Amino acid sequence: MSDFKAIGKAFIDYYYSKFDAGPREGVAALYEPTNGMMSFNNADFAKGAQDIAEKLRSLTFQTISHTVSTMDIQPTYDNCILIVVTGALKADNDPPMQFTETFLLRFINNSWLVINNVFRLILHG
Amino acid sequence: MSDFKAIGKAFIDYYYSKFDAGPREGVAALYEPTNGMMSFNNADFAKGAQDIAEKLRSLTFQTISHTVSTMDIQPTYDNCILIVVTGALKADNDPPMQFTETFLLRFINNSWLVINNVFRLILHG
Repeated sequence: MSDFKAIGKAFIDYYYSKFDAGPREGVAALYEPTNGMMSFNNADFAKGAQDIAEKLRSLTFQTISHTVSTMDIQPTYDNCILIVVTGALKADNDPPMQFTETFLLRFINNSWLVINNVFRLILHG
Repeated sequence: MSDFKAIGKAFIDYYYSKFDAGPREGVAALYEPTNGMMSFNNADFAKGAQDIAEKLRSLTFQTISHTVSTMDIQPTYDNCILIVVTGALKADNDPPMQFTETFLLRFINNSWLVINNVFRLILHG
């Protein structure tokens, strides 16, 4: 899996462009349909594409724009790809906020799908 | 694996207490010896416990203290545990800095070992 960096980078570009173009629940199709997990700035997680789409629809902002600052990509023991992003986002007319987001991708049925995803805003101390 | 949260939390408590007590390269024993990976605020990664110990020894600070703000823990498709931490650290007499750190743990030979690890400082825009 020597191309894990290219796959990871292409995934991140696609994910945020789809998320920002909207409707944002469209990214739910990128998760493993039954067991894909998403934590969105909260200790709980949504499980499965349907719950994830619902969670994304329930978020209160109308427009969002992500800017990636760093992207670290590693292959894993189980032939997955781990990606850790840090960056900034702007939602509606709020001030920009920093965030970190981790994705674990797995190759299932000929596609790279998200099996785990954690998003966190960085709160400045 | 209903106890993934307890395992993840115990791991994080142990990892940072060992890292902060020093010598910090002692945490290298918590990585899978041959293929465990660590990215430390850099796109490259160290691979295997020996490289990881060397990388940790090469860091220039003398003392460090981590404070965890958030910890998100998810079980994975391959029976691993994904942990994403955000928090603050203080190195020597530098001002506190915010960081994010992701760990992927796998149960190998009766131990939970780190197979992937990414550390990033959060740079304020």
